[in-house]
Amino acid sequence: MSIKIGILGYGNLGRGVECAVKHNPDMELTAVFTRRNPADVQILTETAKVYHVDEAVKMKDEIDVLILCGGSATDLPVQTPEFAQYFNVVDSFDTHARIPEHFQAVDEAAKKGNKVAMISVGWDPGMFSLNRLYANAILPGGKDYTFWGKGVSQGHSDAVRRIDGVLDARQYTIPVKEALDAVREGKNPELSTRQKHTREVFVVADENADKAKIEQEIKTMPNYFDEYDTTVHFITEEEMKAEHTGLPHGGFVIRSGNTGWEDEHKHVIEYSLKLDSNPEFTSSVITAYARAAYRMSQEGQSGCKTVFDVAPVYLSLQTPEELRAKML
Amino acid sequence: MSIKIGILGYGNLGRGVECAVKHNPDMELTAVFTRRNPADVQILTETAKVYHVDEAVKMKDEIDVLILCGGSATDLPVQTPEFAQYFNVVDSFDTHARIPEHFQAVDEAAKKGNKVAMISVGWDPGMFSLNRLYANAILPGGKDYTFWGKGVSQGHSDAVRRIDGVLDARQYTIPVKEALDAVREGKNPELSTRQKHTREVFVVADENADKAKIEQEIKTMPNYFDEYDTTVHFITEEEMKAEHTGLPHGGFVIRSGNTGWEDEHKHVIEYSLKLDSNPEFTSSVITAYARAAYRMSQEGQSGCKTVFDVAPVYLSLQTPEELRAKML
Repeated sequence: MSIKIGILGYGNLGRGVECAVKHNPDMELTAVFTRRNPADVQILTETAKVYHVDEAVKMKDEIDVLILCGGSATDLPVQTPEFAQYFNVVDSFDTHARIPEHFQAVDEAAKKGNKVAMISVGWDPGMFSLNRLYANAILPGGKDYTFWGKGVSQGHSDAVRRIDGVLDARQYTIPVKEALDAVREGKNPELSTRQKHTREVFVVADENADKAKIEQEIKTMPNYFDEYDTTVHFITEEEMKAEHTGLPHGGFVIRSGNTGWEDEHKHVIEYSLKLDSNPEFTSSVITAYARAAYRMSQEGQSGCKTVFDVAPVYLSLQTPEELRAKML
Repeated sequence: MSIKIGILGYGNLGRGVECAVKHNPDMELTAVFTRRNPADVQILTETAKVYHVDEAVKMKDEIDVLILCGGSATDLPVQTPEFAQYFNVVDSFDTHARIPEHFQAVDEAAKKGNKVAMISVGWDPGMFSLNRLYANAILPGGKDYTFWGKGVSQGHSDAVRRIDGVLDARQYTIPVKEALDAVREGKNPELSTRQKHTREVFVVADENADKAKIEQEIKTMPNYFDEYDTTVHFITEEEMKAEHTGLPHGGFVIRSGNTGWEDEHKHVIEYSLKLDSNPEFTSSVITAYARAAYRMSQEGQSGCKTVFDVAPVYLSLQTPEELRAKML
């Protein structure tokens, strides 16, 4: 009996979930739901079908977990509460500041429908959050650091693309090595935004554009770039295609803290990710939590859950006995 | 209302737990139980008392969680099932091969007493196990690596001390940098025991001892050293005291695996620890799980649990609302 998965939204994340399901022998992809014309959406899984999103609720008894692959700005705040009434769901809602209100809305819907709804699953929020929690619980007297990169920030790339004269752009966030080293040595430095990360932007500009002006506009863009040291490179469309089509990312969560009667011993806990494909890794985390959502629902649990609420045993393909024998 | 902690066994680990309790404002140390004469045991906490172990069961209603700080070879296989009938308990049982039978014995006792018993808590088993599980669930097609060190192995130090003519010894386990680098680059190397770690031994020898013979005996000792490249240094008692009294340790859990329809993208997940004091860090993990044992017991749960069974939220000083707002 496989866990039957549905995907809502077939972009980078949806395709990533499809690939992750293929890697998990206890799951099968049943359906992909789209807002586009289903006939126009080509998926990879031969045994699954594409439907219009309006058909989803009718299929609620054929799907064990519906994975919501929309965006956090406008899709998920509406979709997750809506579908949590009918399905066990998992989303990757990543607007950190709005998580409490999203949790509230989803919790009410999921309890009404007696379903399990996992929100904010991925790597940050997600695995990074978990590592912050574990490290804080172990070393209550300590200091947390999160560094991102090297990797592509889609939000920053989009912001640059909106500048006049920019045809395409790719922005890399890069952690500053000296800052990372000081943190790893347990020096607990106070670091400004500028001291933690630099930004590197590759731009394809219109041939008539004023490159100096574009560069100035990028470097002074409020919130996105003004607090960072930013390097701008103008490249050709061919170079962009050849060298910058991937979506690598990663980062580091580090906590250092002290133990001992007089705080005499120092400890450093570090978790890091080096990812060739940000959406596929995020999808892989989501898919593991879909297994947990299914199992917790089978046990009679309901309501909104985050990664903090999920005992690790629910995530694994292996039985509790196998895990204790082989992985503990 | 603080969580009232008892400690059974006041060696390095017991003292570490005492220090960790001091760092956790929701806990207080109530009692230390010892097999020695209580009058001979000096503890650091002024508000706690030392009792003979035979007094423990009488105090079962005054203690919320009893932390068992004995050894895995002979103490814990007896003590954990015994005390799990009367107390919520946490132990750090670390004989990996015997965990299933220990679990079974403790589970029966804890269910009989309607208590929560957490076993094998620390960093390996413990945090390293958790990271193996999480990384396996995310990247089911991948390969696991665990490296230990640089750090003191007490078992190996003890083994050297048993050699004729050795007055004192300290053994460091050191991960091989080239192996670690290859794993981090996602090369998935096949590594022999010798390729993963080297061993370095500092020995204080009797002045009349045959040092060449001691060195030979160390390097060829079955299981402990024969499969490793080992370096032996003879030092004075003063050098031992000045440079080798600490108990640093640490290590790395790394999983690399691929995602994508054709496994075209590579990912590396790494968790690492750099610890000044192995027993104090272990104690800090145990103390966080004591909080979880208490909370799970309050909810009516019972039986044997491992780190795999504990939802992260139970470990934290912060409320679920605070965690979602600040740490997710």
